[in-house]
Amino acid sequence: MGKVYLVGAGPGAPDLLTLRAARLLAQADIVLHDALVHPDTLKLATKARFIDVGKRYGKVSTEQRFIHRALIEAARKYEVVVRLKGGDPMMFGRAQEELDALAAAGIETEVVPGVTAALAAASALKVSLTRRGIARTVSFLTPRVGKGETASEWLPAAMGSDTVVLYMAAGAGPEIARTLIGAGKPPSTPVALVESATLASERRTHTTLEALSRSEVVKADGPVVVCVGEVFRDAAQELQIEPLQSAANE
Amino acid sequence: MGKVYLVGAGPGAPDLLTLRAARLLAQADIVLHDALVHPDTLKLATKARFIDVGKRYGKVSTEQRFIHRALIEAARKYEVVVRLKGGDPMMFGRAQEELDALAAAGIETEVVPGVTAALAAASALKVSLTRRGIARTVSFLTPRVGKGETASEWLPAAMGSDTVVLYMAAGAGPEIARTLIGAGKPPSTPVALVESATLASERRTHTTLEALSRSEVVKADGPVVVCVGEVFRDAAQELQIEPLQSAANE
Repeated sequence: MGKVYLVGAGPGAPDLLTLRAARLLAQADIVLHDALVHPDTLKLATKARFIDVGKRYGKVSTEQRFIHRALIEAARKYEVVVRLKGGDPMMFGRAQEELDALAAAGIETEVVPGVTAALAAASALKVSLTRRGIARTVSFLTPRVGKGETASEWLPAAMGSDTVVLYMAAGAGPEIARTLIGAGKPPSTPVALVESATLASERRTHTTLEALSRSEVVKADGPVVVCVGEVFRDAAQELQIEPLQSAANE
Repeated sequence: MGKVYLVGAGPGAPDLLTLRAARLLAQADIVLHDALVHPDTLKLATKARFIDVGKRYGKVSTEQRFIHRALIEAARKYEVVVRLKGGDPMMFGRAQEELDALAAAGIETEVVPGVTAALAAASALKVSLTRRGIARTVSFLTPRVGKGETASEWLPAAMGSDTVVLYMAAGAGPEIARTLIGAGKPPSTPVALVESATLASERRTHTTLEALSRSEVVKADGPVVVCVGEVFRDAAQELQIEPLQSAANE
């Protein structure tokens, strides 16, 4: 019986992988990876076979069951199984379902943390998510508005925190901005959008809740994190502010 | 004029450094590091001289000014200056003050993200901070209670989020628990404390808000993150639960 390592691949750039993750990839017999993992990261697994388990059937529940089955089969056949996830496994990665399925099958697991997208975005923006006198609390959310889910699930955390980073939120950006303003966040609150953080295709856009609330749906080629809070104000003033449309529709 | 790299050293274990950070350390002419960075991490900087800027004079404001001066002097004398910070630089690392001081002195900077302590704790506990149906929102806080600061600064984020991770909170643990219960968090809410995450001396303790609220001040040798939320319930039931005292006072 093999062991399954749930490994964070980091935010995008291959050299933002940890040394431990690189060593495990080199030892891996098989790697089951998300769709967004960088090709150069996969090249570190020189002796492994690969299974791309990202968005296989489009349907989330089927996909997750497929991943569980594939992980269990891999652990029965190989010694070192790496489940490689974008960012950090324990943040919006559905890791618990995979860990529970593996535990139920009696398979040993270990988790290797990674650099999560919010921190990569902060580095790219050169804005600390916490700041003395301005931001002591940071929250990370995934607000999927309009899919039968209500803002009440994420709004209290967003309103209660000085800095808010929204994952997988580009499409819902304008609706999120309207919801936050409606709940009392000042319309002038700075917003920074970072697309494909740490990759060559990285794009940073500074705007405000007010401008975002009036914009079209933000279209993006890569993953976007939406950062909201007063800590982003200075960076917006120092940098050239691109019109939101250009970042959204290019 | 040199360039200053603000680099995340990761949560503790030397192999949880990123590949980029390791490369920059190898290139560094000088490394200014926090007190808690692992000695094996520093060994990667084979040609650098070192300045330990952790808690130099005890007084925080003096210390921070000393760090700014030391960074600016280093950049005037050396080409590659690495400012090595525990965890990720942009999370509770006072990075903004250092970036602003360097920018004011006309010195080029770059930030290299790292694995933050909360994610290392989640990996150690094998508990995902987010979980379908249970936790969609996560907040990271530093509640320094009792030092002229009020709970109103951090309580809304803690109450509004499904999962809460408190940094630098061991000493204030019991008071935090009482505050959370007083604000309406169920006393049975699971709490996990992780001390020195990812190091050989790592200790994990499962308890509840109620038990924590009645305990003595939690004493620890290493840094402690306090994790609060329903996601930690299963792990507490599966593992042997140590009495809080043993974890606190050993």
